[in-house]
Amino acid sequence: MSFFVHSKRAFGALSVGRRAALNRNSMAMMPKRTSFNWEDPLNLESLLTEEEVAIRDTAREYCQENLQPRVLEGWRTENFNHDVFPEMGKLGLLGPTIDGYGCAGVSNVAYGLIAREIERVDSGYRSMASVQSSLVMHPIHEFGSEAQKERYLPRLAKGELIGCFGLTEPNHGSDPAGMETTAEETEGGFIINGSKTWISNAPVADVFIIWARCKWDQKVRGFILEKGMKGLDAPPIKNKVALRVSLTGSVFMDAVKISHDQVLPKSLGLGSAFSCLNSARFGISWGVMGALEDCIARTRDYAMERKQFKRPLASFQLVQKKLVDAQTEATLGLLASLQVGRMKDAHTLAPEMVSMVKRNNCGKALEHARVVLDILGGNASADEYHVGRHVANLQVTNTYEGTHDIHALILGKAMTGHQAFAN
Amino acid sequence: MSFFVHSKRAFGALSVGRRAALNRNSMAMMPKRTSFNWEDPLNLESLLTEEEVAIRDTAREYCQENLQPRVLEGWRTENFNHDVFPEMGKLGLLGPTIDGYGCAGVSNVAYGLIAREIERVDSGYRSMASVQSSLVMHPIHEFGSEAQKERYLPRLAKGELIGCFGLTEPNHGSDPAGMETTAEETEGGFIINGSKTWISNAPVADVFIIWARCKWDQKVRGFILEKGMKGLDAPPIKNKVALRVSLTGSVFMDAVKISHDQVLPKSLGLGSAFSCLNSARFGISWGVMGALEDCIARTRDYAMERKQFKRPLASFQLVQKKLVDAQTEATLGLLASLQVGRMKDAHTLAPEMVSMVKRNNCGKALEHARVVLDILGGNASADEYHVGRHVANLQVTNTYEGTHDIHALILGKAMTGHQAFAN
Amino acid sequence: MSFFVHSKRAFGALSVGRRAALNRNSMAMMPKRTSFNWEDPLNLESLLTEEEVAIRDTAREYCQENLQPRVLEGWRTENFNHDVFPEMGKLGLLGPTIDGYGCAGVSNVAYGLIAREIERVDSGYRSMASVQSSLVMHPIHEFGSEAQKERYLPRLAKGELIGCFGLTEPNHGSDPAGMETTAEETEGGFIINGSKTWISNAPVADVFIIWARCKWDQKVRGFILEKGMKGLDAPPIKNKVALRVSLTGSVFMDAVKISHDQVLPKSLGLGSAFSCLNSARFGISWGVMGALEDCIARTRDYAMERKQFKRPLASFQLVQKKLVDAQTEATLGLLASLQVGRMKDAHTLAPEMVSMVKRNNCGKALEHARVVLDILGGNASADEYHVGRHVANLQVTNTYEGTHDIHALILGKAMTGHQAFAN
Amino acid sequence: MSFFVHSKRAFGALSVGRRAALNRNSMAMMPKRTSFNWEDPLNLESLLTEEEVAIRDTAREYCQENLQPRVLEGWRTENFNHDVFPEMGKLGLLGPTIDGYGCAGVSNVAYGLIAREIERVDSGYRSMASVQSSLVMHPIHEFGSEAQKERYLPRLAKGELIGCFGLTEPNHGSDPAGMETTAEETEGGFIINGSKTWISNAPVADVFIIWARCKWDQKVRGFILEKGMKGLDAPPIKNKVALRVSLTGSVFMDAVKISHDQVLPKSLGLGSAFSCLNSARFGISWGVMGALEDCIARTRDYAMERKQFKRPLASFQLVQKKLVDAQTEATLGLLASLQVGRMKDAHTLAPEMVSMVKRNNCGKALEHARVVLDILGGNASADEYHVGRHVANLQVTNTYEGTHDIHALILGKAMTGHQAFAN
Repeated sequence: MSFFVHSKRAFGALSVGRRAALNRNSMAMMPKRTSFNWEDPLNLESLLTEEEVAIRDTAREYCQENLQPRVLEGWRTENFNHDVFPEMGKLGLLGPTIDGYGCAGVSNVAYGLIAREIERVDSGYRSMASVQSSLVMHPIHEFGSEAQKERYLPRLAKGELIGCFGLTEPNHGSDPAGMETTAEETEGGFIINGSKTWISNAPVADVFIIWARCKWDQKVRGFILEKGMKGLDAPPIKNKVALRVSLTGSVFMDAVKISHDQVLPKSLGLGSAFSCLNSARFGISWGVMGALEDCIARTRDYAMERKQFKRPLASFQLVQKKLVDAQTEATLGLLASLQVGRMKDAHTLAPEMVSMVKRNNCGKALEHARVVLDILGGNASADEYHVGRHVANLQVTNTYEGTHDIHALILGKAMTGHQAFAN
Repeated sequence: MSFFVHSKRAFGALSVGRRAALNRNSMAMMPKRTSFNWEDPLNLESLLTEEEVAIRDTAREYCQENLQPRVLEGWRTENFNHDVFPEMGKLGLLGPTIDGYGCAGVSNVAYGLIAREIERVDSGYRSMASVQSSLVMHPIHEFGSEAQKERYLPRLAKGELIGCFGLTEPNHGSDPAGMETTAEETEGGFIINGSKTWISNAPVADVFIIWARCKWDQKVRGFILEKGMKGLDAPPIKNKVALRVSLTGSVFMDAVKISHDQVLPKSLGLGSAFSCLNSARFGISWGVMGALEDCIARTRDYAMERKQFKRPLASFQLVQKKLVDAQTEATLGLLASLQVGRMKDAHTLAPEMVSMVKRNNCGKALEHARVVLDILGGNASADEYHVGRHVANLQVTNTYEGTHDIHALILGKAMTGHQAFAN
Repeated sequence: MSFFVHSKRAFGALSVGRRAALNRNSMAMMPKRTSFNWEDPLNLESLLTEEEVAIRDTAREYCQENLQPRVLEGWRTENFNHDVFPEMGKLGLLGPTIDGYGCAGVSNVAYGLIAREIERVDSGYRSMASVQSSLVMHPIHEFGSEAQKERYLPRLAKGELIGCFGLTEPNHGSDPAGMETTAEETEGGFIINGSKTWISNAPVADVFIIWARCKWDQKVRGFILEKGMKGLDAPPIKNKVALRVSLTGSVFMDAVKISHDQVLPKSLGLGSAFSCLNSARFGISWGVMGALEDCIARTRDYAMERKQFKRPLASFQLVQKKLVDAQTEATLGLLASLQVGRMKDAHTLAPEMVSMVKRNNCGKALEHARVVLDILGGNASADEYHVGRHVANLQVTNTYEGTHDIHALILGKAMTGHQAFAN
Repeated sequence: MSFFVHSKRAFGALSVGRRAALNRNSMAMMPKRTSFNWEDPLNLESLLTEEEVAIRDTAREYCQENLQPRVLEGWRTENFNHDVFPEMGKLGLLGPTIDGYGCAGVSNVAYGLIAREIERVDSGYRSMASVQSSLVMHPIHEFGSEAQKERYLPRLAKGELIGCFGLTEPNHGSDPAGMETTAEETEGGFIINGSKTWISNAPVADVFIIWARCKWDQKVRGFILEKGMKGLDAPPIKNKVALRVSLTGSVFMDAVKISHDQVLPKSLGLGSAFSCLNSARFGISWGVMGALEDCIARTRDYAMERKQFKRPLASFQLVQKKLVDAQTEATLGLLASLQVGRMKDAHTLAPEMVSMVKRNNCGKALEHARVVLDILGGNASADEYHVGRHVANLQVTNTYEGTHDIHALILGKAMTGHQAFAN
């Protein structure tokens, strides 16, 4: 049982740290020099609730102690580790924002903090969790029937079941409106035909959330498929250059027959699928910052120890600039995601806000992870130094769930009113 | 009389907007699509107190109605407009964070918001105000005697007196520790010798805060000099390529004799001067975001109206990307400055935090103002389009009060423990 | 056995310089360390003919001795200096590639070298010369009648007449196909109606090459108008933020009546106008490299002399990187322009080649001039340091005669076959 | 009168290609539109000798037909393919610039063209060849005795022997002057102690060029060690994130005893080692351009075929810009390397020239390969698309044989006279 499943949310929006500071202030006007913490330059910590801090610490401990030691092996072999989902489930890290059904019901900011801790180890682990939470549990919770929720959510939350999300098709990456997968009504249910690609978790998935265009009204809806159904195949895509600790596959559906109660009844249109992506992107915006922070911490350590010309690398101007640029972006990106999380919790979120932080944080994480990688010199090639792995992963995170350019055009449309996707 | 001099600070840290949102949330769990406001993408507004919003609105109205119409003339001629300081004083925009002495006593965030509104018009006007508030009134308030405070602060707050701040010397820009200006004790007072350069407001200043190394103990202290003293000269530097609406000058001190009560008694060491710079830099971090926002708004308007190939520029991918990148950075920079402001108000600020936002915001404002300038095409050359002027100004703001590189090295030292200034 | 193990070296292809070097080499097989000349890192000089070197030296001497001393005054006042054209004419710097009609008949590389030397002083002077040579003399020579050539070219070459080129219209910058100016046949000639904007030299021009759509066949042709014609007005655009030593104006044509012999008889379609632009762009690609080289030389000098923390700025890593990046781009850009010039001379040029060097060199000159400007610190604001002026100018050169983006799309079309201008 | 109005054109300096072009031109003055070849935008081809073109074509055919089909397998498994060296040897691709000893004796430009073709497939294959040619055969040829040349060069040229180059030590990457490996004279020879790391080819090397500090005079000299010597061990470094088709290892030397004739007699000081690196870097500067060209060609093909929003990606502005930027840099980098090659052939080369092209070309190849990678969208993760592999490789090429920053400081020293390596 996760220790925080029953904890309450701290609604008093003032964080402990800030409250203390204000008290200090009223008590004594003596400004003294506060020390600067390079790992949290603008004191993000002070903006978190106690519960959020506790969740973050739990997640960090798990990730550093249990995932970090396995990551190299997983990366080198592309072998899937079946323990990870149940372990995450035990700690309440799956579907954590859902209230009930065995889920923790914590804030969206807490969800973001979890993503950050997982991705501090590897974007692949975080992708596994994101899919489960945002792309499988979220749509079941949001668009599913009560029976569906009860049937799937508790076991997904425990990590007993693994889910995947089939939206992207071979010919429609940035353009899901061109979807070719279809659902057709038949006696006693539906028949699903089509194929999906680049589907995280698919090869080990028990539950498939598949988006298909319904022939009767041309609307897109979500359907729940299950492993073992006739006509359903999910072969892995091997030899990936990134996200190698997680599995990715194609999904082929050749006249898969499902019953009527396998449609997500409240899903209607691509907007339903996008709401899932939006939730996932919010988590990604936190996660990639964790990866970048890990790159910074590792290259800083290296620069502190490694000497050239009898001086530590960390004392060179060109090295300091790289570290500082990266740390600045990590700091700003996290503050922005926090603000988005607070609005998500307050239900004042517009989807473009998520586009902004997903795009910015992924782009910046990639850019600066690449820059600090150079600090490692020749050792950048050795996978034990981990940063090269993050760099390879971050290229994918910058592309999936809306490429950097697509989110630019989503925001561009919001700024100008002009749609320029097809320009 | 400023309308907000007597207003109270809203200590309930939850902003009105956010409180409302949380209420909504507890009342009804109905998430509805919130509309996206491109001018405030992550809803900074919701994080401000009512007082801060009111101050911001007052400042904006003044700046747009009174400064904007004068800026082209000031820029073209380099003529100083003597009405500006009294007007700002009347509204409480000078020294606004000081409590008492005719000052408004508002939050540091409010101070930042004022800087942003002024610099939305021109960095030169904002520089004038920054110097007065952070570099003249702040040190008098912080390091001055009660008599000094009473003598100078009320008149500086009203804009009846103009102040300047003499720290930088011809041979010591980034390296004030090399200061050559001296103070020597003499019968009945001190004798000041030396020269300062690139001193904003100097040619019209009534009050000069001059930093000098004291011959008796080799410590740096601040001194208050006044216009008209024998041996004091402050000729303007003309033909500047930026900040042309504000005056800049050199200050020459040839055995200027002052009485004993003209030393700032609590100033001791360069740290005192740096505390002033730190305050100014905080304001700059807000101000430059205002300039960038103005560049974005103007080039977006242009792109909406201007057609090429029968379509508005705003519908082109390459144009949208420029606008979106810029708006994203403005959004992130403001959130970071807000957080720094909240910590400044709470006295939990470390100086490196200010280095981070000063450096980031100035660098990003300059970079993106330059990018969006290209949207204007040939019209970029016409000063009525204003963006070229902002670009020229922002190059200076990125350099003064600590260059982009010097702040990188300050942060680099904080991250690594290694000082690399002279490397 | 490899097919080339026994093959001989093909000496035919060796340039003179290389042959000399090999001779040296055969005389003494002792490869000795050749010294590196930072002002010409890859020895461009060795690729020039003696004549080209001589022309370059003449141009440099004139520019440094006669233009450099006047540039600040011209920039500050926007006053046009009427001596410049005659002086340039005297030296053969106007229309230099034309054979006959009082012109020098030198190589296109020599023309590029002249542009580089003039722009080393100021982009405005170079713009004046570019317009005269590439946009006025070139079309008259290429598309004019023998009578037109004899009437105009010798006096334009001497700088007795000043020419301008009217293509851009208020609503059609990147898109000249939208041209609204018209030519209508009338008794004894044509009537021209329309307006042009951002026309260099216009306010002082004696000769106007005006492009207009002919009502009788909807084709665009060039026409020669002369100062003083009824209905022709060319007011200056003042308060420019760049290119202030050269004049720019609008051209208004209100039923200007010209005789039949004022049409350029061989001009037909926008292609004729584009051939002029192409010639001008080639010169710009050289010119901007000169401006960048001047920025590098000045900031390097400054960095050598200026000390901070008791060491010259030039000894700091962050400063060296700025200088080296800039010098590298100047070196590569010049080599590319040289190759384009050689192909232009050999008539093996494709217009997209010019797009590549115009775009690259203008973009790089602007980018790196901005970077090195920061080396000046606070002195960047003082116009006597000249670099800020270059930066302001280079923003315009990056935009005019095809913006950076438009040339990207021209090249993109050449690479992909897809036209994306209006996307 | 201008001094050059009547001067003649200096034809002596014309290249063969240009002379041909002018002949064509004199035959028919009709300049016709030359078509633009996006794969060679500025016609580099016209600057090559026939022999160079033939060598290039041979190398390309071999690489595309024999290396390309093996690269995925080699990358995935890190298994070394023992056929590659003999195959390259058969074609004369190893040590090609050496005259005699079974080597081809071709120009340095030809050597660069070979590197470009090999690296068009993979940087690892090119690294294998670079080490053999520039770091093993070159020092034996340059610093070896006649007996050494005869003993090693022919078999190295045939690929029967594989060589490696041991300079870098675990604690001295950018700073070889700190070398700790020693040579001590003993009865009948020398004893070598020390270790080297990141040594390409080491695990399969037959011949080791090892640089050691000689205890008797503290000078660094090169020594030839052979596989199987007692105390010599060269274990592979596995799980590399890049250059996986080539082997890399450490070299441990525990009192390896060699005879007196195993020293390279003409080697003296680090300068000898640097001359090898310089030769290798020249080849790298060509090689990486080949890798970038492959990335461009592959992503362009993808963009032409792949449709989103019913249009090919290649028709989108944001995609065209990526391709054009990359192609421009490839074009400029190759022209610069050509000029460096011509000077190398003419023995007019300064080492800093090589630093400039090594640094620029590696940096640009990496930067733009990363940018175009994004065009692949999700498929960037699949290694069959090859670009991700190039990106991983290019990060290493940007770092080895002098990092991007070290070469900046080498050039910075050349520009300013100030050494800033340890700053």
